[in-house]
Amino acid sequence: MREPNGYRPAPVAGMVGAGQLARMTAQAAVSLGIGFRVLAGAADESAAQVCADVRVGDYRSAGDLLAFARDCEVVTFDHEHVPQAGLAELERAGVALRPSPGALRYAQDKLAMRDRLTRLGVPCPRYAPVRSAEEVIRFADVTAGWPVVLKAVAGGYDGRGVWACATPQDAAGVLGRAGASGVALLAEEHVAFERELAVQVARSPNDQAAAYPVVETVQRDGICVQVLAPAPGLPEDRAIEAQRLGLRIARALDVTGLLAVELFETSGGLLVNELAMRPHNSGHWTIEGARTSQFEQHLRAVLDLPLGSPHLAAPHTVMANVLGGDDDEGMYARLTAVLAADPAIRVHLYGKSVRPGRKVGHVTAVGEDLAELRDRAARAAAYLSAGPAGGLGAGGTALSAGRGE
Amino acid sequence: MREPNGYRPAPVAGMVGAGQLARMTAQAAVSLGIGFRVLAGAADESAAQVCADVRVGDYRSAGDLLAFARDCEVVTFDHEHVPQAGLAELERAGVALRPSPGALRYAQDKLAMRDRLTRLGVPCPRYAPVRSAEEVIRFADVTAGWPVVLKAVAGGYDGRGVWACATPQDAAGVLGRAGASGVALLAEEHVAFERELAVQVARSPNDQAAAYPVVETVQRDGICVQVLAPAPGLPEDRAIEAQRLGLRIARALDVTGLLAVELFETSGGLLVNELAMRPHNSGHWTIEGARTSQFEQHLRAVLDLPLGSPHLAAPHTVMANVLGGDDDEGMYARLTAVLAADPAIRVHLYGKSVRPGRKVGHVTAVGEDLAELRDRAARAAAYLSAGPAGGLGAGGTALSAGRGE
Repeated sequence: MREPNGYRPAPVAGMVGAGQLARMTAQAAVSLGIGFRVLAGAADESAAQVCADVRVGDYRSAGDLLAFARDCEVVTFDHEHVPQAGLAELERAGVALRPSPGALRYAQDKLAMRDRLTRLGVPCPRYAPVRSAEEVIRFADVTAGWPVVLKAVAGGYDGRGVWACATPQDAAGVLGRAGASGVALLAEEHVAFERELAVQVARSPNDQAAAYPVVETVQRDGICVQVLAPAPGLPEDRAIEAQRLGLRIARALDVTGLLAVELFETSGGLLVNELAMRPHNSGHWTIEGARTSQFEQHLRAVLDLPLGSPHLAAPHTVMANVLGGDDDEGMYARLTAVLAADPAIRVHLYGKSVRPGRKVGHVTAVGEDLAELRDRAARAAAYLSAGPAGGLGAGGTALSAGRGE
Repeated sequence: MREPNGYRPAPVAGMVGAGQLARMTAQAAVSLGIGFRVLAGAADESAAQVCADVRVGDYRSAGDLLAFARDCEVVTFDHEHVPQAGLAELERAGVALRPSPGALRYAQDKLAMRDRLTRLGVPCPRYAPVRSAEEVIRFADVTAGWPVVLKAVAGGYDGRGVWACATPQDAAGVLGRAGASGVALLAEEHVAFERELAVQVARSPNDQAAAYPVVETVQRDGICVQVLAPAPGLPEDRAIEAQRLGLRIARALDVTGLLAVELFETSGGLLVNELAMRPHNSGHWTIEGARTSQFEQHLRAVLDLPLGSPHLAAPHTVMANVLGGDDDEGMYARLTAVLAADPAIRVHLYGKSVRPGRKVGHVTAVGEDLAELRDRAARAAAYLSAGPAGGLGAGGTALSAGRGE
């Protein structure tokens, strides 16, 4: 395609979904001079507010997907919810999908993921598909004990996909509600981990790959509140083990683009918790803390451009999520106060309406003194999250929002 | 303004002009969650390609300016070409202009700037308004000797605003062409400087101010090819002198937003060369090299938000401009090669059509070894600028493109 003035546009990368991941990927596309298009469910979604090339449509509609993909060099995703039927239609139409439907399946279907990783010899929590309270009780009695973690194999309900069940009664309640919603469940052992780690790797169609430093993700009430990069005190051999695990999974599952592997660190070693095949909350620190941000890296990987350096840009980086409180009015006033209190804090707001527990932004502190950075990031995030529920998550038994974007 | 879902948008900052400065300011606005609107001359201009809120219009038309400014909390500028008449119309309509027309005048009119700075006691090259070759000869004979630098008091012609004249004949030629274009001229002594420096300061309406580290700007054929941050080997007292100069000028001229002060470093001290009241090419290094980028800082200043830390994020940062060559086809291929050759180089492309000598992007290298960073930045920029004229500028006697954005 050429325009009359001789300007030949760079390729257009299309991203299905218009949440904060697409919003921050859009910023990265600007620097590379690459065209970037999002498929938004509504014109006021986070990325749609800031992108020049927005198509409004339904990611569950093959027609909307096909129209969106026209003239895109590649199509990628800011979530894993596009149905396989729609992906198949795009593939039939010759659209380059990165990651491919075959890879995405393992991010969509937790049972398929567990089965595949187990066949690969990747250490995972013990698990079993369950269809009844009796099967959960048998899984607990024979395999893993209580509490048992129940997970939706795909999707979830009420915005949740993971439930910790202390008793058979808890499990029966989850099974009943899941059954009513038509959601299949998986039981997993409740891992007595020492902490949670995450590793991100990027992989290109031509099999170039790069691994970011391993980070620690600090969770509270099932929501990630802080990410510490690099993971403090992690022995080098374990860090290398985690990076190798990420690289091995990316290649074995033929992932293109970014892969985030969430890990449990236990006394016995590492276990894989979850996979995500896109930029991920555990990688927001890379905007300031790494030579190449995860968002630019994802674009480079899916476009088969050479990958960027994943190296640290500073000794320590701390990212803290800003969770919505119940004050929908005062975000700009709170931003003003936070910028005044800490001139070096980096703020990223997503333009999302505030709801308790929802990720509406994040802050990053970069420097040399980890304790000081954690304190600064926590204070800035808590202030931006103001309101009685701010910064504390929704509480209750939910272990995860099930998406962790 | 509130939307049905309870989301109250943050203020909208409007920027007149849609070049690369507006493009990079747009990226910063996304992070702060601030609305950002540009006034573009055409829908394919650099910033218009990537902004969600683009108004196409003529910055010389008061009507277009008024329509553009509607619902903007503040209006600011990516260039200094908006006529005072248009600015006056906006002010009468109650639009908050930052910088104000009174301050902008000194970025628009070099004679007014020289007169004002001289009254302030700010060291400047010797100068005089000139209307004829005789006046230039008298200026050279009595005051400054040859060569003489002629500058357009406002604007310029043929895309140039500065000419070095070695002889009276050169001066007569410039005067003739300037006169034919209706351009008033200023004569300045040709300063035998040791090197060129620049300092950027930010100032808020409430008089908060912050000064960035002083940088060295490396020029070739009148075009800035590299910026070294901080300026290597600059004694601390001279750095402080430059920062104080910037802060003093910003306050005295009532600048709001960013002020870039281009300086000559001579054996006798510092002389002010040019002023710009906006983000500036000499500050592109701040995206990776400072805790707060100049683009975010400009937004924070014009919105009267607390200013961000201007501190260095790394020991050394080198920015190199990518100048258009004569190959309009191969930019994406060249990008691919540069990313492969140097995985840690940061590339910023502006989406502009390639023309010899035009700034079409920049690259940044961040780290500890200045010589290595300069080499890496130069190689990446030269490669992206490929073509016989690439990286070498347009040659000839032009000392400056007269805009230096």
